[in-house]
Amino acid sequence: MYNHKVQYYETDKMGIVHHSNYIRWMEEARTDYLSSIGWGYDVFEKQGIISPVVSVKAEYKNTSTFGDTISIEIKIEKFNGIRMEVSYIMKKNNDQIVFIGYSEHCFLNADGRLVNAKKTYPDFYSKIQELMTA
Amino acid sequence: MYNHKVQYYETDKMGIVHHSNYIRWMEEARTDYLSSIGWGYDVFEKQGIISPVVSVKAEYKNTSTFGDTISIEIKIEKFNGIRMEVSYIMKKNNDQIVFIGYSEHCFLNADGRLVNAKKTYPDFYSKIQELMTA
Amino acid sequence: MYNHKVQYYETDKMGIVHHSNYIRWMEEARTDYLSSIGWGYDVFEKQGIISPVVSVKAEYKNTSTFGDTISIEIKIEKFNGIRMEVSYIMKKNNDQIVFIGYSEHCFLNADGRLVNAKKTYPDFYSKIQELMTA
Amino acid sequence: MYNHKVQYYETDKMGIVHHSNYIRWMEEARTDYLSSIGWGYDVFEKQGIISPVVSVKAEYKNTSTFGDTISIEIKIEKFNGIRMEVSYIMKKNNDQIVFIGYSEHCFLNADGRLVNAKKTYPDFYSKIQELMTA
Repeated sequence: MYNHKVQYYETDKMGIVHHSNYIRWMEEARTDYLSSIGWGYDVFEKQGIISPVVSVKAEYKNTSTFGDTISIEIKIEKFNGIRMEVSYIMKKNNDQIVFIGYSEHCFLNADGRLVNAKKTYPDFYSKIQELMTA
Repeated sequence: MYNHKVQYYETDKMGIVHHSNYIRWMEEARTDYLSSIGWGYDVFEKQGIISPVVSVKAEYKNTSTFGDTISIEIKIEKFNGIRMEVSYIMKKNNDQIVFIGYSEHCFLNADGRLVNAKKTYPDFYSKIQELMTA
Repeated sequence: MYNHKVQYYETDKMGIVHHSNYIRWMEEARTDYLSSIGWGYDVFEKQGIISPVVSVKAEYKNTSTFGDTISIEIKIEKFNGIRMEVSYIMKKNNDQIVFIGYSEHCFLNADGRLVNAKKTYPDFYSKIQELMTA
Repeated sequence: MYNHKVQYYETDKMGIVHHSNYIRWMEEARTDYLSSIGWGYDVFEKQGIISPVVSVKAEYKNTSTFGDTISIEIKIEKFNGIRMEVSYIMKKNNDQIVFIGYSEHCFLNADGRLVNAKKTYPDFYSKIQELMTA
């Protein structure tokens, strides 16, 4: 579980968190998660691999604002080596669901070509498979 | 057509625009569009009405970076008075599609209750219908 | 001591943290500090008082990037009830100074008029004086 | 003169522009200005030169909010080849001064070493001198 404390600069003139920030918190939770299993963005980037976002879906269920603590439950939903699908459930103050999100990611080498992580990073691939079935 | 010049602060260490910014540009194009037809956010807010984002979908088709000009084609896809669906096609340098997005919006009064714009703002409702069938 | 973990979305295409984020981290540390002594922004805002930033100074001593942990030492330098001066020293990974900052703040009521906190919030004023001389 | 239209996502729960955005607008005006004289950031970056911010000063004179147009008057104050000092005066709606800012910049090569632009980029240096005395 990843926690994010809502900052003043994340609010907008409606008095609530601007919706674009949840997209950033998805990234916060995702980079934290991958780092915690030993496969942080920095590990890939040192080898010239980047992992851009292919798509995002976001459902805003409720509002949050300055001072709230957002807990983020992250789950790898699918991973075939080429494309990784991740889901996010965010609650405020350990109670009410405020946001449900999905993101898709691929892996690209320095030439901008798709990398098949199943072949190139078999340890990463099997680690993710293991976590998905846990 | 709305144009956004990509700023340095919108890039990330991949050397490209951070994906969260496209969500912000959707808002830029949307507020500009509604303002151009006489129904800017400020018009609603003066009457205590806010229009939060209910959901967002984002497909990242290509990358953009500092110095690129992003042209945004915006279209109201559906509007029943309660929920408004908007689509966005973004091209870089008037050529390549970089992003396709969708957003859904509702209207809330000061008590946080849903407003039926068809009843409360009939001029706004008919203006949108007119533009959708144009 | 306040800690901030550098996020991917805070970097720019130089591969380092974009300089505008340090200004945001100053706010993070400041709101956290005031909250910890019982005088958070929410306390003031509930009474219709806002505390805008009057000025900022920022010296960028070194770079930081994704994955670094920034520790922030905050200190109230001066407070006469009208104007509050705050200093910030930021280090990366508990070692190297990356940033030194200063900010000035005032307090405004709902009419936009300056509030003298020494008179209106004597408990807050004396708490800050106490911390400054500690 | 550079113009920036204030976006909704740049406001905060005080109902005004968050102070960190003015720092970003300084960059907007600066990159636009340098680009307009043929020495954009992209020109330097193609040669492996980056130009980090060394320091910033910001004086918040008045507030601005969603829908305002901010005009930015930029001026190179000093440039000795090593360090460049820039000033910014921002007005809202062509009338009231909202912000006065200063920034200092240096030039670094790929090894992170200071570049003397007077020697390495004499055309850039003389162009700036010419504009300063114009």
